[in-house]
Parts: sequence; C-alpha cells; structure tokens
Amino acid sequence: MEEHLLIDRLTRYYKKSAFQKNKVHESDAEIIQIPNTDTLLAITIDSLAEEIEHSLYTDPYQIGWMTVMINASDLAAVGANPLGIVVEQTLLKKHINTKSSFLDDLQKGIADASSASGLYVLGGDTNFAKKMHMTGAALGVCPQNRYMKRRGCNIGDILATTNKAGLGNAFAYAKLFKDSQKNCPKYFPHAKLKEGKKILKYATSCIDTSDGLFASIEELGRLNRLGFQITASTDEILHDEAKKISLPSWMMLAGHHGDFELLFTVPEKKWPLFKKEFQKQQLPFIQLGVAVKQLGINFEKHHFSPGVIKKTWSESKNNIKKYMQNLLKLGGCDEH
Amino acid sequence: MEEHLLIDRLTRYYKKSAFQKNKVHESDAEIIQIPNTDTLLAITIDSLAEEIEHSLYTDPYQIGWMTVMINASDLAAVGANPLGIVVEQTLLKKHINTKSSFLDDLQKGIADASSASGLYVLGGDTNFAKKMHMTGAALGVCPQNRYMKRRGCNIGDILATTNKAGLGNAFAYAKLFKDSQKNCPKYFPHAKLKEGKKILKYATSCIDTSDGLFASIEELGRLNRLGFQITASTDEILHDEAKKISLPSWMMLAGHHGDFELLFTVPEKKWPLFKKEFQKQQLPFIQLGVAVKQLGINFEKHHFSPGVIKKTWSESKNNIKKYMQNLLKLGGCDEH
Repeated sequence: MEEHLLIDRLTRYYKKSAFQKNKVHESDAEIIQIPNTDTLLAITIDSLAEEIEHSLYTDPYQIGWMTVMINASDLAAVGANPLGIVVEQTLLKKHINTKSSFLDDLQKGIADASSASGLYVLGGDTNFAKKMHMTGAALGVCPQNRYMKRRGCNIGDILATTNKAGLGNAFAYAKLFKDSQKNCPKYFPHAKLKEGKKILKYATSCIDTSDGLFASIEELGRLNRLGFQITASTDEILHDEAKKISLPSWMMLAGHHGDFELLFTVPEKKWPLFKKEFQKQQLPFIQLGVAVKQLGINFEKHHFSPGVIKKTWSESKNNIKKYMQNLLKLGGCDEH
Repeated sequence: MEEHLLIDRLTRYYKKSAFQKNKVHESDAEIIQIPNTDTLLAITIDSLAEEIEHSLYTDPYQIGWMTVMINASDLAAVGANPLGIVVEQTLLKKHINTKSSFLDDLQKGIADASSASGLYVLGGDTNFAKKMHMTGAALGVCPQNRYMKRRGCNIGDILATTNKAGLGNAFAYAKLFKDSQKNCPKYFPHAKLKEGKKILKYATSCIDTSDGLFASIEELGRLNRLGFQITASTDEILHDEAKKISLPSWMMLAGHHGDFELLFTVPEKKWPLFKKEFQKQQLPFIQLGVAVKQLGINFEKHHFSPGVIKKTWSESKNNIKKYMQNLLKLGGCDEH
C-alpha cells in the first residue's frame, strides 16, 4: 500500500482539531495554533525502525544523530524555529552493559545533532525490548506565525533545492551492497533550518528530501497536480560521492534514502530576489527545473510517470534486493 | 539499572535549553517556555514496547487507546490543557492486509482515547518492522503558565490519589497468568486531565501512577527525600477488581502495571478547600496518608525500604515470572 493511501486509511478515524492549520499530507510538520493567541507551533514525530532493522544504520553515534535530524528536517521544511525535541529510546538489555560504549555513543550522536540544529533535548522515554527502535518528536515555533506547505506550487514556478543530491543513496548502496565499508561515505545530514526560514519568504511549496530527491519531487507533483521538467544536468545535481557509485546516475536520485535537503518552488518573478539573498549569504542552492502541466518527471532522456518512484519502495515490501531490482527497471521505461 | 540512574546516564550529554523550566526527573511532562512570550508548554513522549512484546496488550483497540492515554496522563500530572498528540506506529506488514480489522481497530482505539481526553491527533509517522511498536508525543498548554512538579512535598503534607488502585495489576495478572481470559477485567484508563487542572491549585507535588501506586509513592519519596505513612486501609485503597485476585493485596498496589490516576500531596491547611471542591464537583479522591521524615513506605504491617519496589522490576531484567517472584519476597521483608 502506498504511503499516502495508508495515511488516508489511518486518519479517517481521527477528529480534526479546530486549532490545526494544515490538512493531512499538506506539510512536513503539523501546524497548531495555541488557543487564545496568534502563536503557531510546528510539531512532528519521526522514527528509525526500518533503518535499524535492515542494518542501514549500525553505528550508535549515527543512529543518535539521525534520530534528531530526521525531525529537525521536518521543522526546516515548514520554516519553523526549533524549540526542542523529546526522544524515545527502545534499547536492548545489552546496551546498558557498562563495558560497552554503545549507549554513550548513541547519546553523543543525539547531543551533537541537537547542538548542531539548536533543537534542545527536553526529555524522553526509555524502554527495553528485543528490537532497537528510536523515535523523536520535535517542536518549533513559526516565525511571524507563517509556515510553508507542500501545496501551493503553480505551473511555471522554479524548482530548486538546497544542495546536491544522492549522498543518502550512495551511503545506503555502499553500506548494504559492498562487503568492504572502507568506501562508505560519511552520512551525517544537517537539517536546513536556517535556509528554511529564508525560503519561507519566497516559496510556494516546500518539502524535505528525506525520501530521496525524485520521490520528493514526485510528491510535490502529486499534491499540486502538476509535473516537473528537470533542466539541470546530472553533473549539476549529483553529489560527488554518488558520482563514484557504479550504477546509473538517475538511480542515486530516485533511491529512497534521502539527503534531508529542502526541495521548494519559487515563482519566476520572486526568483531573482531569492537568488540574491542566498548568494549574498553564501548559501548553496541548485536551480533544478520548472513546474509544468504534464504530470510526472522529465529528466534527461527519462520520463517517470506519476507515482512510479514512490511505488518501487511500497511494492518491494521491505525487501531491499527486490527494491533495487524494481528501481533498475524504472530507468528503462517510458524513454522519450 | 534503575530507571533514574539510567536517565542520569543518558541526559548528562545533553545541553539544557534556557527556556526549559523543569529539571530532569522533576515532572511527568517537560515544561518549555515559548521565547518572547509567557506561554508555557508541556510536552511528553511515551511508548508501548514491553507491553506489546510481553503480550500484555494484544487487542489492537486497547493498544491504540493506551498509546494516547499514557501520554495524556503525563499532561494531567503537570496540570496542562491538552492540545494535541502525534503518533508513531511501527506495524507489521500483515497489519495492512485489508481483510484484517487489526489496523482499523488500532485507529479506533487511538481516535476514541483522543476524543475522551480532548487530545486531538495532529499527525504521525508509520513504519514497518518485525516488531510492533507504538509511540505518542503529546503537547499541552499550562493554564495561567503554572504547572505541577513531582518535587515540592513537605513533611506533614497529605498524600492523596484520584481513585482506587490496582486495576492495572489485576488486569496484568489475569492477562499474563490465567489461561482463561474470561475473568480479565476491562482496562481502559482515562487520564485525569480535568482533575489535574483542579489539583494544580492545591498540590505541592504530583505524579501519575503509570508505574503502579507504590512505585509512584516511592518516587515522590525519593525526589522529596521523605517517606510516607499510609493510613488508609487496603479496603479503602484497593480497586474491586484487584480484590478478586488471589494474591496478597499489597502486591496489587506494588505491581508496576499502573492505573494512570494522579498521586499528589496537599498541605494540611489547604486540604479542607481541596476536599470541598472535589466533593462539590463529585470527583472521587482517596486520602492515603501523610508525608513523614522516615524514608520508605509504611503500609499496614509492611515497611518498604526506599527504592525496593522500583528495584523489583529493574532487577528482574524484563522477565515477568522472575519479577513476580521478586515482588512476592518483598512482602516478607522488614515487617515491623
């Protein structure tokens, strides 16, 4: 079952708060007004379960880092100021063995990601079970009570991102398919909180690339009922570490292990001002392409029909090898 | 390792936010001020991991209900107004089989507990793994920017609770140790949010009884460096369902599967006013005893030394049978 259909199935039972501003699917974090005030809060919850189970993340420091950053990135995508995070850790009994540094390294990763993102650890909950599982829930405040949504992009808007893409997939490929971990690139994404607050002034839509660049573009397309023509070249888009992987370049963009950059659209007339501000502040960005009427994604010689990228993961039923086979097939289809 | 020592080990790495009002261990929910305002928010995170793994909760509706209520109860214990909850669900692939009602029953439990507590579901995250795991993170607003702490109780303060105790343990005993589930009592706790806001006006300390009545009393004693003389009788304290269980009564109070009632202390001189308000509103409460200088808990012929009750769980290393044996031993010790 595809994620958005599953979410629809889950949420139909819930009553909506009169104070909630966003609709389902509409933003990376939930936006809620504090009653009797104008203040808008952003709140999000995100877990590491599959990533630990599939041994994508095995290093405790990295697990701690990611537990914070996956949540910080959701706040970045709505343009919120980080306030704090609560962390739930389901550990194995062996982790509290005092001779092992696992538990301490895990906390160092949490603490360092917290410092790097300004997302203070407020508290948490600790459990013990047979499988490790980590959850964070982050809280932010919307500046001037404004926030970004995934919905709002119009045909003609410029599509851009805060950095090159594919590091997440390069890391995943090296970690899962290479015997030697020598060549595994370092993967410690930084949530783009500072950038998010600036993009807020210009963007018609914004999403983080936690599911990979193409899946995120696809999601913006689905929600805004339009498509994207990517005009930037592989060379301009692809992260240097992803260029080293001996797989078709587009696979490093279509894979589902993301980079936690921001992906956003800016109306053509606001683009020069956006560009000027980002260049002045020496913040990186890449102009990817443009929103078009034709659904799906056009990239170099490929056309990806709407939904095909997200489906590769949901249809592989958590089987990584099957997923890679499905993904490979995608490149062959619909060349134009 | 005992919970409070583990928490100390985890939190020493984290930097504290200047906006966080409570210290570690000091309150059931974290209290954070929104910068540039007087508003205080309460936030908490709580999971079901052990409860699912040990088959204490197997009914999906109950799992959904509890995921919300364990968090709502933390808000109640600080006296906050509920604002909303985000829910992370780690499911098994078989749960999304459309022929199974598991997923829908789970959501109905979440939705009903949400309605019952006024804690709207704002959003969430869904994952798939080999073990089911549920987490909620709840957000509240502190009325008049005041909140309750676990710390603040003085010798001579009256100890009270919002209801009879032991239903949680009666349920756990029937569920885990009886072949037939016919006699298993219904267990759907309601977080005492309304009561919490009233208790806020009188209490010097408050905690929820999520870990069972005696473990919660013990925790108040530890944090306030005092003990408690319980003057109420078993008959006055024990829940009717717990009276039916053929185990020593005190075990139903000392067991760690709680009732999610509030446990709180009120100075003697404020007690008549508290009593008057609760009686007028027809809200139940039980006067349990009094805070005394002698550490530990005195109850009928038993004296429980400081920390012994919490230790029974931590030392049984997640083994329920071993835990029951350890708990049984407790009753024999230190009679006076």
